[in-house]
Amino acid sequence: MNELLSRIAEQCRAEADNGKVANYIPALANVPPEKFALAVHTLQGERYAVGESEEAFSIQSVSKTFLLALALQEMGEALWHRLGREPSGNPFNSLMQLERENGVPRNPFINAGALVVCDVLFDLYQDPLLALQQWLSEESGSMALVDPETAQSELEHGDRNAALVHFMRSYGRINHRAERVLDFYCRACAIKMSTSQLANTMLILANHGVSPVSGKKRFTRSEAKRINAVMLTCGTYDAAGEFAYRVGLPCKSGVGGGIVAVIPNKMGLCVWSPPLDQTGNSAAGLAALDMFTTETGLSIF
Amino acid sequence: MNELLSRIAEQCRAEADNGKVANYIPALANVPPEKFALAVHTLQGERYAVGESEEAFSIQSVSKTFLLALALQEMGEALWHRLGREPSGNPFNSLMQLERENGVPRNPFINAGALVVCDVLFDLYQDPLLALQQWLSEESGSMALVDPETAQSELEHGDRNAALVHFMRSYGRINHRAERVLDFYCRACAIKMSTSQLANTMLILANHGVSPVSGKKRFTRSEAKRINAVMLTCGTYDAAGEFAYRVGLPCKSGVGGGIVAVIPNKMGLCVWSPPLDQTGNSAAGLAALDMFTTETGLSIF
Amino acid sequence: MNELLSRIAEQCRAEADNGKVANYIPALANVPPEKFALAVHTLQGERYAVGESEEAFSIQSVSKTFLLALALQEMGEALWHRLGREPSGNPFNSLMQLERENGVPRNPFINAGALVVCDVLFDLYQDPLLALQQWLSEESGSMALVDPETAQSELEHGDRNAALVHFMRSYGRINHRAERVLDFYCRACAIKMSTSQLANTMLILANHGVSPVSGKKRFTRSEAKRINAVMLTCGTYDAAGEFAYRVGLPCKSGVGGGIVAVIPNKMGLCVWSPPLDQTGNSAAGLAALDMFTTETGLSIF
Amino acid sequence: MNELLSRIAEQCRAEADNGKVANYIPALANVPPEKFALAVHTLQGERYAVGESEEAFSIQSVSKTFLLALALQEMGEALWHRLGREPSGNPFNSLMQLERENGVPRNPFINAGALVVCDVLFDLYQDPLLALQQWLSEESGSMALVDPETAQSELEHGDRNAALVHFMRSYGRINHRAERVLDFYCRACAIKMSTSQLANTMLILANHGVSPVSGKKRFTRSEAKRINAVMLTCGTYDAAGEFAYRVGLPCKSGVGGGIVAVIPNKMGLCVWSPPLDQTGNSAAGLAALDMFTTETGLSIF
Repeated sequence: MNELLSRIAEQCRAEADNGKVANYIPALANVPPEKFALAVHTLQGERYAVGESEEAFSIQSVSKTFLLALALQEMGEALWHRLGREPSGNPFNSLMQLERENGVPRNPFINAGALVVCDVLFDLYQDPLLALQQWLSEESGSMALVDPETAQSELEHGDRNAALVHFMRSYGRINHRAERVLDFYCRACAIKMSTSQLANTMLILANHGVSPVSGKKRFTRSEAKRINAVMLTCGTYDAAGEFAYRVGLPCKSGVGGGIVAVIPNKMGLCVWSPPLDQTGNSAAGLAALDMFTTETGLSIF
Repeated sequence: MNELLSRIAEQCRAEADNGKVANYIPALANVPPEKFALAVHTLQGERYAVGESEEAFSIQSVSKTFLLALALQEMGEALWHRLGREPSGNPFNSLMQLERENGVPRNPFINAGALVVCDVLFDLYQDPLLALQQWLSEESGSMALVDPETAQSELEHGDRNAALVHFMRSYGRINHRAERVLDFYCRACAIKMSTSQLANTMLILANHGVSPVSGKKRFTRSEAKRINAVMLTCGTYDAAGEFAYRVGLPCKSGVGGGIVAVIPNKMGLCVWSPPLDQTGNSAAGLAALDMFTTETGLSIF
Repeated sequence: MNELLSRIAEQCRAEADNGKVANYIPALANVPPEKFALAVHTLQGERYAVGESEEAFSIQSVSKTFLLALALQEMGEALWHRLGREPSGNPFNSLMQLERENGVPRNPFINAGALVVCDVLFDLYQDPLLALQQWLSEESGSMALVDPETAQSELEHGDRNAALVHFMRSYGRINHRAERVLDFYCRACAIKMSTSQLANTMLILANHGVSPVSGKKRFTRSEAKRINAVMLTCGTYDAAGEFAYRVGLPCKSGVGGGIVAVIPNKMGLCVWSPPLDQTGNSAAGLAALDMFTTETGLSIF
Repeated sequence: MNELLSRIAEQCRAEADNGKVANYIPALANVPPEKFALAVHTLQGERYAVGESEEAFSIQSVSKTFLLALALQEMGEALWHRLGREPSGNPFNSLMQLERENGVPRNPFINAGALVVCDVLFDLYQDPLLALQQWLSEESGSMALVDPETAQSELEHGDRNAALVHFMRSYGRINHRAERVLDFYCRACAIKMSTSQLANTMLILANHGVSPVSGKKRFTRSEAKRINAVMLTCGTYDAAGEFAYRVGLPCKSGVGGGIVAVIPNKMGLCVWSPPLDQTGNSAAGLAALDMFTTETGLSIF
């Protein structure tokens, strides 16, 4: 396995040259594009890694997976009265679809959907950010901290998200104050974690809701399956079909260049390389996961 | 003329029964639906009126006409680099079209367009609200005051407008802070004026930019023509075609139940009746203007 | 007047250099771009012209005005159960809006609307094409012939129109066979007439439904007003606002480079210059009408 | 296994009461709603079934899977220059999305995409319908016949599909004559096969492109994976997310009430029950597949 990871790193790193680091906020734009890490953790407790796998980076939209987990473990299927779970077929921050569908977001992995989940979390937890950090610390095995500078930048460049929240509020889909929801959402995106930490968090999804890291049963087998299904069909912006084919695993990506992936019954993975392709996914990250499932035959298809 | 106005009042008042008073804020919902007024002022200085023509009501979107006038008199045609002047064919607060057209509003009479005009006015005037009130006081012949309770309600129910401003800001189409633009916009909508005052303000448009009330030349003949043309094609939400046919005059309506109208070279009109038809225009107001142009033959067509 | 027309021809012809002749079918692409004609006919019977005003050209979408006239004179207001009369705010052959509005076209001057009018005419006339040609011959004062080569080319390049008809049929909005409706529509577009002939046809609209050419009363004052209103708000594709401002007259344009215009109570006009601007309207034609109303002050605003 | 299938039939049949048999053509409307069959075939050659598993029904959109297979086996990845492979997030016959994306369909399982595949097949095969029937006969183990009455009805009610073809042709996305493409498409949908036959055809996808039925290698491992991925993300109209979660298998459904499914490395399945739920998928079919994967734990997640 270590040999495979080395070959993947060697061959896929170059793909980063075809991508572009996210540059809408300085905190992301300043990350060196040559960074690369891949971590593979098994349910048996084996841990493999290559590259800067202990270096924390901005998890960005990967946090949407954890927001969903947090809501689902408290609320169960009732969550789906608030939002859908179907692919959107539209850019992740589109208002057009939201308007056509009366302010109900398509799924929890487009921005509108994650904002609804944030709103829900204010009903479920006294301090949702604290709850999220605690969950992540327990499931990753070490502290998950918010980078305050990134959070501030996100807020300042957050007009699109503000538009989404106010728009959904105008349909009565958001219960809490727009500013509060946006603040929490931006902080969640600004959490920094390492590929190694994130690979750990995926084990709970590989293990049907029971975490081998914290030892806790967070959700039912059915809820874990739900999260995996939503990751596969909606987890990688407008490239879910491409990921399903090339990687063939439930994945969730972020504009920080991280991608987490689940091999049901077997492993949790995380890859990190900052430059993004045109669909907003890590270019080298996609290549690495593609090579990993191709060489190991571990795709779900 | 007075006899005609009496007949119009008598026959058209009943149309109000088919409409519904705007109820999204208390300040509008509490206006008695039976209120009715029609004022007709000529360039020769004759003034005709029927009903509560001296009672002030919330001008709402009629203010969009004056915001446009204020911007155009300072900036001239350069204003059109910031927004379009074509009919929108979509509900007045649609985000869908805005997304398809990269955040540039179709015209100054949909909410998105009026918000851009508000943003522009912060560049042109130290205190745009004061400038607007001054303009209105001079052109109407008496004070135009903001109703603070209405303004506050508008702000509290203003999620859709907030969504529009943030959305346009995300495309770089709004230069000033969202809160500031929204606050000004809501105050402008909350101005209270009477039909008599509003009929006066239309004389400047009937007279190609030179006001018989203030004696001032506010804009060029060409700019006055522009405002009239935008009123005719875009002034009555999604019923511009219906108004063009039935009334055949440049008009601008508001959800407070007021409609202003211009007869080029001749007159300024204003009608007021709170209940709105399905397109958001005063039901009895449309009927009254229809009857006025039909009986006088003063349509532009 | 003749002197004015000469100056207009001299100054506006050059605008054609900024346009592009329609080239989707050979019959249009082969027309010399330097052609120019302007005809002005008054209700008093005066006829002024400059350029190739007796040369017949492909009237294309100008025919939509006559299709509407033909339907309205038989059916009256009942026609509006079949289609709308509001500006569309979308390209003239858009399917998106049609889908959102359940297959009911916005107005008779977008392609979808004209196709519905064609469908209606099969219910009203034994041979609608013959009826149209007869009407045009009577109202223009001489024969109006279909160019068979153009009609054939239109049909062969008519996939977008075929899509519109089949789409509306799938909503139950078209009663006759798709092929039949398309064939008639393409032939109507392929009619050739001169600016002089077309200026004549506009007199009936200037004269509230009574034709000074044929002496016939074709429609009521109200119906004539309706056609004028639809021309002003919808007659020039996605540039209705621009035309309302610059020209200030009810107009209808075609991709053959012709534009007809009405001055209510006074005149009928037609201008022809093949090169089109980006909105699909004759570039020199718009300039000529703009200059005409500016110099004569005959705008309706 | 036989015991499990019996229990599934017993428990899930009732779900049909919540659905509605497709009624836009008589050939579908007249099928008895109580029909039910489920067939499960393994790569080892075991065959299990319950209900009318040898009765042929109209495969309808299930044929899209085979059209795709036929194109992919000849053309390989070059096929994707002609259409996408991402979920659409819109009804299966929407024109709106097609317009926004310049006439390129999102994936081969919406009608627009299947029509493009039909167009492609005219380039690859002398007689594509014959090729399709031959392929199906070989892979299902017995004859696959077109029902001529159904095909004729489809054509007569095919205005929406005709609109799609003409619309894509107007963008230059269809090379062959519209009538020819539509005729082939309707015949492919009108093929009748039994659940038993269809379960057989899925084995090639379970076995990575090598058919245990015909013994032929039809496509590469990678192409088989591609088809499975597209089935999972796009195979069940606007309910792909729901199917991914509840069933957790690559599936393709048709309005005839059939659903095929693949368990990679293990089995091919087909279920049939005519009444459809609101998303156009067989109501009892979904319930049956849900129960099957829940009881056997054979979901891919």
